[in-house]
Amino acid sequence: MDKNRLLTPGPTPLPPLVRQAASLPIIHHRTPQFQAILKEVFDGLKYIFQTQNECFIFAASGTGAMEAAVANLLSPGDLAITVEAGKFGERWTEICHAYGIQTETIKVEWGKAVDPNAIEAIIKQKASQVKAVFITLCETSTGATCDIKAISRLLKDTPAVLVVDAISGLGAMDLKTDAWSVDVVVSGSQKGLMLPPGLAFISVSPKAWDLIKDSKSPKYYFSLLQAKKAYDKNDTAYTPAISLIIALNEALGMMKKEGLDNIFMRHSKMAQATRAAIKALDLELFTDKNALCDVVTAVKVPQGIDGAKLVKTMRDVHKVTIAGGQGKLKGNIFRIAHMGYIGKDDIIAGINCLEKVLSQMGYKVSLGAGIKAAKEEFSK
Amino acid sequence: MDKNRLLTPGPTPLPPLVRQAASLPIIHHRTPQFQAILKEVFDGLKYIFQTQNECFIFAASGTGAMEAAVANLLSPGDLAITVEAGKFGERWTEICHAYGIQTETIKVEWGKAVDPNAIEAIIKQKASQVKAVFITLCETSTGATCDIKAISRLLKDTPAVLVVDAISGLGAMDLKTDAWSVDVVVSGSQKGLMLPPGLAFISVSPKAWDLIKDSKSPKYYFSLLQAKKAYDKNDTAYTPAISLIIALNEALGMMKKEGLDNIFMRHSKMAQATRAAIKALDLELFTDKNALCDVVTAVKVPQGIDGAKLVKTMRDVHKVTIAGGQGKLKGNIFRIAHMGYIGKDDIIAGINCLEKVLSQMGYKVSLGAGIKAAKEEFSK
Repeated sequence: MDKNRLLTPGPTPLPPLVRQAASLPIIHHRTPQFQAILKEVFDGLKYIFQTQNECFIFAASGTGAMEAAVANLLSPGDLAITVEAGKFGERWTEICHAYGIQTETIKVEWGKAVDPNAIEAIIKQKASQVKAVFITLCETSTGATCDIKAISRLLKDTPAVLVVDAISGLGAMDLKTDAWSVDVVVSGSQKGLMLPPGLAFISVSPKAWDLIKDSKSPKYYFSLLQAKKAYDKNDTAYTPAISLIIALNEALGMMKKEGLDNIFMRHSKMAQATRAAIKALDLELFTDKNALCDVVTAVKVPQGIDGAKLVKTMRDVHKVTIAGGQGKLKGNIFRIAHMGYIGKDDIIAGINCLEKVLSQMGYKVSLGAGIKAAKEEFSK
Repeated sequence: MDKNRLLTPGPTPLPPLVRQAASLPIIHHRTPQFQAILKEVFDGLKYIFQTQNECFIFAASGTGAMEAAVANLLSPGDLAITVEAGKFGERWTEICHAYGIQTETIKVEWGKAVDPNAIEAIIKQKASQVKAVFITLCETSTGATCDIKAISRLLKDTPAVLVVDAISGLGAMDLKTDAWSVDVVVSGSQKGLMLPPGLAFISVSPKAWDLIKDSKSPKYYFSLLQAKKAYDKNDTAYTPAISLIIALNEALGMMKKEGLDNIFMRHSKMAQATRAAIKALDLELFTDKNALCDVVTAVKVPQGIDGAKLVKTMRDVHKVTIAGGQGKLKGNIFRIAHMGYIGKDDIIAGINCLEKVLSQMGYKVSLGAGIKAAKEEFSK
């Protein structure tokens, strides 16, 4: 009778209203009925992205929108800065290289935030050449965030645009697209937006459009000029993922009702409670304390414990799904997400399960200590 | 109390089981639970594609898989033949040009099938240069199909691969991928497969893999080499559209149960009944009688009738959604689809509505004649 409980950094659990919307009889996309929904969705995305820029929707996973950013902004031979603080930062570099873009890559120790000075140093040297800086809001693989606002300030008087992968983080942590002058923000549906995976989003500033007009990289499905043409007619360039967009409209409605500030506060509270529990269980956070993001908590697997088995037992025996480590962190960390449609009960249930399984695996744990710490944090 | 009835060539109506599957609580994709589903789906696709080749899944609309074919098979400067018999044939040419591929383009009168001799003529002249032939199984914009089997035979002893856009048609009309030596087949979810839009598919033959290994076009999200690496581990390269894939598994189960031959027969029957009704109403088919496909019937708007208003009235007053004309056929034709989860009642209801609205708009029609003809065809 245990319920499946998903505490992974994407996909995140679906609210019942979202699931219901995704299951409605399908309607045709080139109808006033769907276009009315699309208009609401386009407006709702601006609220979540905190921008007046257009936010485009692709049927794709988030990586599709990352590729859209590279292929639309740059041309072969261009120079870009990529920040690699984890697996998803590395993806920026990989996509750039696939398109013949040269990169100055800043390699950050996994679990830490990039030092804006490292970006500034390159900018100072090559301000006229750098066309774009690609960075990650929340590095899902490490649980680390970085100071987007400070980095953005560095680019203000340069020709370079700032492109932020906010696939993890959008609609969960503050990202003031317009106020901080972030040119391009990409995101996906299966994280803060509480939807199944399958939609990718990208917002585009006027400064970015100037680059887009000059880009010579090949593109078709992800062409932002085509997307813009369709957007201006309240349409999409190619058949949209209708059912997911109808579900998105429900999710956006829920988010507007809760309000961005409340959403951010809720995520921050979840993160604090989770970290308090981790500390009470004598476990060690993987992420640098100055880089902690609010959407996922990365924890070092304690000595003598099999990290893969921990995740597997929690999932297959107790139906609580958390995430293991990715890439070079495989087996060394586990990650508890607290993003999207997640409440206090989910965190308590997750910590309870973690305590139980760790104890069964031989880790010395004072049973209940984690739950107690999380509850205390919640009641503050 | 009228029910919405969708008779459009994508999206097509969703079976209740598919809708239900799309609304289940989400599960994580990197779990044995999801991988078991993915394995079933990969096998099921082989059955529908009639192939032993791998069939890959992208979160994208069908156009994404078309782009995947071009970007993975070819390199800038390569020569390809594109067949333009309608709007979707034109898309092949557009994608090729976006990637710097040179094309020999065969322009076919809209509504007709390409003459295989036209392809043979180019092949004879430039056999060593032509790397690929891009063609459309069912040209949704005109209701015309073509002789894929005959065209395939022309390429057998040449280096060129045959790439078929079967977005409309797959799982509704016969396409013997392996028996006819079709190298690459692309498709989408919202047509014969009875799903919401958002999934794209592509099957790849050994001959096509040889080209793929040499391709120098930039790609990342749509990289088939990455897709293959993940496929071999029963995985997807990037986060899959989990809920749509779970729904796909239901749809594939239904299709296996009905059996491909029965599915093709049902579609053929629907098409014949629809055409019989059109004839009985003294309306004229747009499509050449030797090119008629089984998934959509394209009809000329009769003199004096406003085609856009006809479609709008059927949809907004009577809740029967058919499609108007696309591109240069806008206002000149209307299209009744009979693809996917469609039964006799849907066709009868659609014809009934068409008769009624045409009559109200001043077209002289013997009310009931269309329904009678369709019924007679069904009872044969």
